[in-house]
Amino acid sequence: MAEGPRQSPRPWKVLDSRYSFIDPWIRLRGDTLLLPNGQVQARCHIFEYPDWADVIALTVDLNIVLVDQYRHSVGQTRTEFPAGVVDDGEEPLAAIKRELLEETGYASANWHLIGTAPVNPARQTNRIHSFLALDARKVAEQNLDEGEIIRAYELPWSEFVAQVETGGIELPALQLAGLYLLQTYARRSADPRLAVLRF
Amino acid sequence: MAEGPRQSPRPWKVLDSRYSFIDPWIRLRGDTLLLPNGQVQARCHIFEYPDWADVIALTVDLNIVLVDQYRHSVGQTRTEFPAGVVDDGEEPLAAIKRELLEETGYASANWHLIGTAPVNPARQTNRIHSFLALDARKVAEQNLDEGEIIRAYELPWSEFVAQVETGGIELPALQLAGLYLLQTYARRSADPRLAVLRF
Repeated sequence: MAEGPRQSPRPWKVLDSRYSFIDPWIRLRGDTLLLPNGQVQARCHIFEYPDWADVIALTVDLNIVLVDQYRHSVGQTRTEFPAGVVDDGEEPLAAIKRELLEETGYASANWHLIGTAPVNPARQTNRIHSFLALDARKVAEQNLDEGEIIRAYELPWSEFVAQVETGGIELPALQLAGLYLLQTYARRSADPRLAVLRF
Repeated sequence: MAEGPRQSPRPWKVLDSRYSFIDPWIRLRGDTLLLPNGQVQARCHIFEYPDWADVIALTVDLNIVLVDQYRHSVGQTRTEFPAGVVDDGEEPLAAIKRELLEETGYASANWHLIGTAPVNPARQTNRIHSFLALDARKVAEQNLDEGEIIRAYELPWSEFVAQVETGGIELPALQLAGLYLLQTYARRSADPRLAVLRF
């Protein structure tokens, strides 16, 4: 991104800050705030997440690499792009290369950062980093965490796009953002291989 | 959406379920699970959120209605579409009409549901509902919650798109999803006014 968002003086003063809940994937922080109008707001809750990353991984034949997995939060098997958490001190690119390899066994030597954005600044602290990987190919078996059941498979790009548009595949909203970023990236790129990715 | 995601038999059995944290905007639930491999996973955390809604609101002159507000989570003033929480028992359309009016004073009689998607099924239970409102116009003053400071303003659609693409405006990832849904909706619509919204 060429410029960041507009900075502003912080209009809310933090009077007190404490954690209600901590695990490796989130810290839930309650701040007591002095608002600009002089009022005190108790326990404004902030979700401190690590950054996230996801990837639109395409083979040389323009198949997209997808993962189906059971998501306990919604009680369904969902289709998603490979994605994961950026570990502390890790670069987003390193994180998504690791996640792609673990979840699918695929690797690529041709990576593009297509965009990065705050996930949901209304309550969350973190950003998502979206990548495109070209020439992805299977180089290993999956290496899943205990309890993970992930089906990784390829689908022709055109069929994938048609299924997303007709509802046969319903991506998470966060990953629809990746499709928008890909469109913008492909339109601005001189690489002829990216032209075919435009809708 | 024409079809839902694939349903599957629930492969994880819930042995115990309890709440770690509850407020009006989230309930943090810890489930102890029996995994298909026979292992027990303690305290898998699920974020029970109400659904969310947002709107790409355009005036008859094709200006988009945006809001700038300070977001304590990231310590910055951010530019966003009007958005909010769907209250218990409320329809998403009613919720976003209410939020648009409260945050900006604008209303519309020409609403389109452009898409709905689970926000982040990896951990969250909720969906986001994205709307397009045409012929939006200012009918009232803002009606903000205590402590809210929101600057509502119009920007020509073409300038908005250019700023998003060059980084002058950095939307939340969740709202980039709305731009993707708008593209798909506009391409499939016969309404000539939507044709100009295609990038």
